[in-house]
Amino acid sequence: MNDIKYVAFDADDTLWVNEPYFRDTEDQYCELLKEYGTPKEISEALFKTEMNNLALYGYGIKSFTLSMIENALRVSEGKVPQEVISGILALSKKMLNEKLVLLEGVAEVVESLFGSYHLIVATKGDLLDQERKLKKSGLEKYFHHVEIMSEKKPEDYQKLLNHLDIKPSRFLMIGNSLKSDILPVLEIGGYGFHIPFHTTWQHEKNVDKLPDSEKFKELSTIKDVLDEL
Amino acid sequence: MNDIKYVAFDADDTLWVNEPYFRDTEDQYCELLKEYGTPKEISEALFKTEMNNLALYGYGIKSFTLSMIENALRVSEGKVPQEVISGILALSKKMLNEKLVLLEGVAEVVESLFGSYHLIVATKGDLLDQERKLKKSGLEKYFHHVEIMSEKKPEDYQKLLNHLDIKPSRFLMIGNSLKSDILPVLEIGGYGFHIPFHTTWQHEKNVDKLPDSEKFKELSTIKDVLDEL
Repeated sequence: MNDIKYVAFDADDTLWVNEPYFRDTEDQYCELLKEYGTPKEISEALFKTEMNNLALYGYGIKSFTLSMIENALRVSEGKVPQEVISGILALSKKMLNEKLVLLEGVAEVVESLFGSYHLIVATKGDLLDQERKLKKSGLEKYFHHVEIMSEKKPEDYQKLLNHLDIKPSRFLMIGNSLKSDILPVLEIGGYGFHIPFHTTWQHEKNVDKLPDSEKFKELSTIKDVLDEL
Repeated sequence: MNDIKYVAFDADDTLWVNEPYFRDTEDQYCELLKEYGTPKEISEALFKTEMNNLALYGYGIKSFTLSMIENALRVSEGKVPQEVISGILALSKKMLNEKLVLLEGVAEVVESLFGSYHLIVATKGDLLDQERKLKKSGLEKYFHHVEIMSEKKPEDYQKLLNHLDIKPSRFLMIGNSLKSDILPVLEIGGYGFHIPFHTTWQHEKNVDKLPDSEKFKELSTIKDVLDEL
C-alpha cells in the first residue's frame, strides 16, 4: 500500500447519501401509479425501462425522470392522468434540490488524508448535479481533481489515469459498488477498498463474490481507511 | 498570436451542427401543441420554462425534454393528451440518435493544427451526449483534452486553464457564441476567434457589439483559422 499516492472516492453513497433518495422517489412514484399495478410490478417495469434507456440517457436524476415518465405512459397504456406526469416532474425537482447529507466519518477521513495524498472524486451521474452536490458538501477544496464519468468500465479508469499521468500501482479507488468502483480498478492494476452501503441500486449489484486480490480490502466504514493507509 | 499553444474549440455549431436540430424539434413540438397557442406563443413559453429550469437542469437534450414536457402541461392547463407527452419523448430520443454532421472545413482545420498545437474541446451540454458526438465525429484522436462544462463563465475557463496548467496568453478559444465562447476568455486574458453560425439559441444572443480587443478576431469560416495562426 506504500506506493499509493492518489486516493479516489466514488461520490454517491460513498461520500454522501444518494440511493435512498432514489428509492423514496420510486416509492412515491409507485403510489402515484397504484391503479396500474403493484409497487413490485411498477418498479420492475421501471427498471426495465431504465435499462433500455441507459445507453442513450446515461445516469442521473434527469435520465431517471425521463424513464419514470415513459414508464408511466407504458404501464397505464397511455391513460396516466396529466397530474401524475406533473407529479413526477415535481418529484424530480425535489430530488435535485435535496439537502446533502455526508456519510459518517467522511469529513474526518478526507481532511486527514489531505496533504499526504492527492484526493480525487470519480463518479458517474449528471455533470451539473454532481458539481452542485460537491459544492454543497463543503469538501470541494480538498480535491485535486473531480472526474464525472459517463461510465466506470476499466477503459474509463485507464483514461482517467492516463489523463492525470498516474500509474495504476499508485492509485486507490474507494467506493460502495464492487461492480463500478472496485473490479474495473483491480483489473487495470490499481487498489480498491469496498465500503458497502445499506441500499444499492439493482443495476450495481451483479457481483456474487468478493475479489481475491492483495490489492483489495473490504471495509465496514470509511473511517477504516485511515487504519489501512 | 505567436504565444498561442493551446487551441480550444466549442463543439455545438462550431465543430458540428447542433442548434438546427433543437429548432426543428421545437417546430414539431409547436405543431403537437397547436391547439393551445401559436408557434410563437408556445416557443416563448418554452423559452421561459427553460430559463426557469436552467440553474437546476443545466444544458442539453434531457433538460430540454423535461422543460418541453413541463411547458406542454402548463400551456394546455393540464389538458395535453398523453400521446403528445409520448410524442415529446420520441422527439427527444430522435435528437439523441441524430447523425453527426461536421461543419465544412472542420476536419481539415483540426488535422492541420494537430501536431503544432494542443487541441482541446470545451463545450457545454450533457456529458454522455457530447462524448457520443465526439466519438461519432471521428476527431476524438486529435484532441489532447475534452472538457464538458456545466457553465462557460470566466471562472469556469480559469478553472480549466489552472487544471491544464496553461497561461491565458497561450490559450485561444474558437466558438460561435460571443457570450459563452469569446467574452469570458478575453476577460481572463486569453484569445478568442468568433465564427458565427446561422442559427443561434436566444439564450446565447445577449451581446450587442463585437469586443474591441487585439486578442479578438471575427472570422467568417473555420478555415480562416489557418490564415490567422
